[in-house]
Amino acid sequence: MKIALAQLNYHIGNFEANTRKIIDGIQLAKSKGADLVVFAELAICGYPPRDFLEYEEFIALCEQSVLEIAAHCNDIACIVGSPVKNDILQGKDLFNAAYFIEAGKVKAITKKALLPTYDVFDEYRYFEPATNFACIDFKGKRIALTICEDLWNINDNPLYVSNPMDVLIKEKPDVMINIAASPFSYTHDDERIKVLGDNASKYQLPLFYVNQVGAQTEIIFDGGSLVFDADGSMKAEMKYFEEDLQVFDLAEVENVKNKYPEQQRANDIEQIHDALILGIRDYFQKSGFSKAVLGLSGGIDSAVVCALACRALGAENVMAVLMPSKFSSDHSVQDALGLVNNIGCMHEIVPIKEIAEAFDETLAPAFKGLPFNLAEENIQARIRGIINMAMSNKFGYILLNTSNKSECAVGYGTLYGDMCGAIGVIGDVYKMQVFELARYINKDEEIIPVNTIVKPPSAELRPDQKDSDSLPEYEVLDKILYQHIEMKQGTAAIINQGFDEALVKRILRMVNIAEFKRYQTPPILRVSPKAFGMGRRMPIVGKYLI
Amino acid sequence: MKIALAQLNYHIGNFEANTRKIIDGIQLAKSKGADLVVFAELAICGYPPRDFLEYEEFIALCEQSVLEIAAHCNDIACIVGSPVKNDILQGKDLFNAAYFIEAGKVKAITKKALLPTYDVFDEYRYFEPATNFACIDFKGKRIALTICEDLWNINDNPLYVSNPMDVLIKEKPDVMINIAASPFSYTHDDERIKVLGDNASKYQLPLFYVNQVGAQTEIIFDGGSLVFDADGSMKAEMKYFEEDLQVFDLAEVENVKNKYPEQQRANDIEQIHDALILGIRDYFQKSGFSKAVLGLSGGIDSAVVCALACRALGAENVMAVLMPSKFSSDHSVQDALGLVNNIGCMHEIVPIKEIAEAFDETLAPAFKGLPFNLAEENIQARIRGIINMAMSNKFGYILLNTSNKSECAVGYGTLYGDMCGAIGVIGDVYKMQVFELARYINKDEEIIPVNTIVKPPSAELRPDQKDSDSLPEYEVLDKILYQHIEMKQGTAAIINQGFDEALVKRILRMVNIAEFKRYQTPPILRVSPKAFGMGRRMPIVGKYLI
Repeated sequence: MKIALAQLNYHIGNFEANTRKIIDGIQLAKSKGADLVVFAELAICGYPPRDFLEYEEFIALCEQSVLEIAAHCNDIACIVGSPVKNDILQGKDLFNAAYFIEAGKVKAITKKALLPTYDVFDEYRYFEPATNFACIDFKGKRIALTICEDLWNINDNPLYVSNPMDVLIKEKPDVMINIAASPFSYTHDDERIKVLGDNASKYQLPLFYVNQVGAQTEIIFDGGSLVFDADGSMKAEMKYFEEDLQVFDLAEVENVKNKYPEQQRANDIEQIHDALILGIRDYFQKSGFSKAVLGLSGGIDSAVVCALACRALGAENVMAVLMPSKFSSDHSVQDALGLVNNIGCMHEIVPIKEIAEAFDETLAPAFKGLPFNLAEENIQARIRGIINMAMSNKFGYILLNTSNKSECAVGYGTLYGDMCGAIGVIGDVYKMQVFELARYINKDEEIIPVNTIVKPPSAELRPDQKDSDSLPEYEVLDKILYQHIEMKQGTAAIINQGFDEALVKRILRMVNIAEFKRYQTPPILRVSPKAFGMGRRMPIVGKYLI
Repeated sequence: MKIALAQLNYHIGNFEANTRKIIDGIQLAKSKGADLVVFAELAICGYPPRDFLEYEEFIALCEQSVLEIAAHCNDIACIVGSPVKNDILQGKDLFNAAYFIEAGKVKAITKKALLPTYDVFDEYRYFEPATNFACIDFKGKRIALTICEDLWNINDNPLYVSNPMDVLIKEKPDVMINIAASPFSYTHDDERIKVLGDNASKYQLPLFYVNQVGAQTEIIFDGGSLVFDADGSMKAEMKYFEEDLQVFDLAEVENVKNKYPEQQRANDIEQIHDALILGIRDYFQKSGFSKAVLGLSGGIDSAVVCALACRALGAENVMAVLMPSKFSSDHSVQDALGLVNNIGCMHEIVPIKEIAEAFDETLAPAFKGLPFNLAEENIQARIRGIINMAMSNKFGYILLNTSNKSECAVGYGTLYGDMCGAIGVIGDVYKMQVFELARYINKDEEIIPVNTIVKPPSAELRPDQKDSDSLPEYEVLDKILYQHIEMKQGTAAIINQGFDEALVKRILRMVNIAEFKRYQTPPILRVSPKAFGMGRRMPIVGKYLI
């Protein structure tokens, strides 16, 4: 039996495009001699459809797509993920399911049992967990089909919910298939290979795993679909961050002697680089836009975002706006222009001095002679926000946000100023990782001027300002933030690791207070196991850790 | 037996204040002769604590608070809600639970079985559902204690999870107690009375119900704790939107002949009015601020928000900023000043003409002579946003957002302009309801100038602009939006109700496209059953209904 894994990039709610893409995948798999083609979890509607699932019309459109797809499954069988109605009228209205289609008809529906409801996942919000499981017989082989998380609790043994494979294995299946929508983070590929390999060897069955690829606003799917033999050895690893369709002969996979060579895996920074480019590209393509604008300060954050945007969209589609103020250093404009020249994107220089003066004069009566302070610093950042948005409104460019994760964490940024944008490109990348990204971008040639990378970070909102006036060195800051955000450690636990008590308290207080800012920032491309946004849900008015 | 219901206003994560408040409640209940005092769901930490629950230190602080509270329970028993650890090491880490404390010791822990995971609720994200239930014996009475949602599936009969009361009733309890954190919406009080009354009569038991009161950022708890006799007749209804502690004699509640008179209930607009005032007041008190700023345009939205803010915070704590442009009509400033005079708040007049001209001149080279359009309209709204935020930064005022729900829905507002603010006061109030609110505010005297209420709504961002240039009349718009947002109806279903097809498609497309704006707007005080924000989770880059 030949099994095709179709690793495709879907668009949430774009039934026309998704259905066409799935039908094209069926035709291609057929032309390559496949008996069965497997598409990912919720391929029909894209993942995550979120509250669209609460609209009956949305579910009706899913059902209609399945009929269209089934009509193309006469000489090939197909497995495709879709929500299906829960017709037993109790519990949630839907199941997260997979259709098995053979000879033009739906022959079986497999439902997901283990519903992730943590981090970015909300599956219990919509879906009823499955409690009954059965294998699918196809061409003399018995298939144990499961959906994503159903294979992820291998080390868990809950009493109250069935682990689907522990039930299915009793039916003596010949092969496991798992369809997934498993979001990327830079730690996830290794985990995935480990967990799936462990399943194959635990159940002593070959395993075919197909994942989605592509970005859905902030969530990035990296593909990397996998095949394992019954020993748990990897037999194939499909492309990362790209669509891919490959056909595998089950007999070859069943031959455990025939080992595939170990692949060289991309390191974290390479993966983040590729993920962000896919994230930018899909945000634009799926929203129907092609051109981006961003403020280019001469600093490292906007330089990295500019370089990534040029790689994602083409330099000819990126507008860099240089907005020097009276506090900008000479090198800022030079460094920004250096990048523009190296990379070949569009640029405008829009000095903000006159506008800032107009604000000063207009606000003078209301400000009653009070001295320059944060208010005036923020006015400058917000003038730049307005100019970026004016370029966006005038020319149809989409504004990219250039805030990094360290800044987002401690609130070192101006709401409605440099925190503007449609999508946060590096909001899940700590400052120290931004430096690594910059060096990686420069690995073959100097794209980002070296001075941008080596000079001390500064917001340049007052004379001689440095980030280090307000923040500890990023080496220390990022470590504390990582412990608090990713590792969920509180004050005492972080201090116990040897960090300075006063510093930890100050940093965690900043993180907590900045929640009101983060609530209003753009969606952030998620590349870590714990990104700001839908994966981290904190009260705004709360007092813990203050 | 005398039972005290303590309906208190907690602060998420403020263990010191919550514990003190609970101990004060114990003392007061004791002084009134109560044998048992009952506090609400998750009273210890406030509701909803969200991802704070994932921090071990947070749970340790809950446990410490329980010990402090227990030390005050020597002459009185106490029921108090708190997260407790799931020590069986499978499933989620916590239970949503209630401690029963007697003679200074925890005698029982009751766990919640039915975990709401819809709308604003995320309980499956954190909690394991309870599967074992037992009554609590106290002073010769057997108490069936449940937590909030556990009494809400009275018409449901799930096979896979136990309905706690159906189990507990077999132990022949004498009384039901339910502790809740049940958020306000203008439809919720009637539902609550119906559901709880149905429980009392179904199980033929008296029922004591205690709810939280107070706002936690966007979620408002209205209190309205209730007592029912075994016939399902209401015996007592505690205060709405205020703290309250009342002691009830169980023997009197058990006497079903002793009926209480029907109460006059507040209508929807009165409830919304009171809820918004509580929402504003608690946002400020719990964040540690006292003064508000808002842009006052002369239109009805900002007038209503100004009036509500003055009632919540005192007029002396509210700064209204009038920011006329060259497109502002004469009556705008007059109407705004009329309100300021009627209400006695602070005000500043900050004309934006010079700043707008500075933007025009600075952007002229980049704009290359292109005609005035949306870009210049938005610049004006954003200048006002900067001025509001400058007043906020300079004087420590907190900016109130004045966008209404109709505007939020269709994206009729400028991101980083009039959509700025720390909290959206009327973002869950449709425009037609805003008119009703204005009339209600004026019921005793003219506070909001009549001209503000009767003139045609306008954003005044270009000459002679009217909302009706871009939008249908609000009477029609609001009805379509209500069907789509609250009733979750799609295009076809709304057209089937008799609305114009082209209009419905246009409106729903606007709603869908505006998702990127709503993602970046302030938290919105929730008063309806379906508010924008955490209760409505939509993809940004999605194509359904476009």
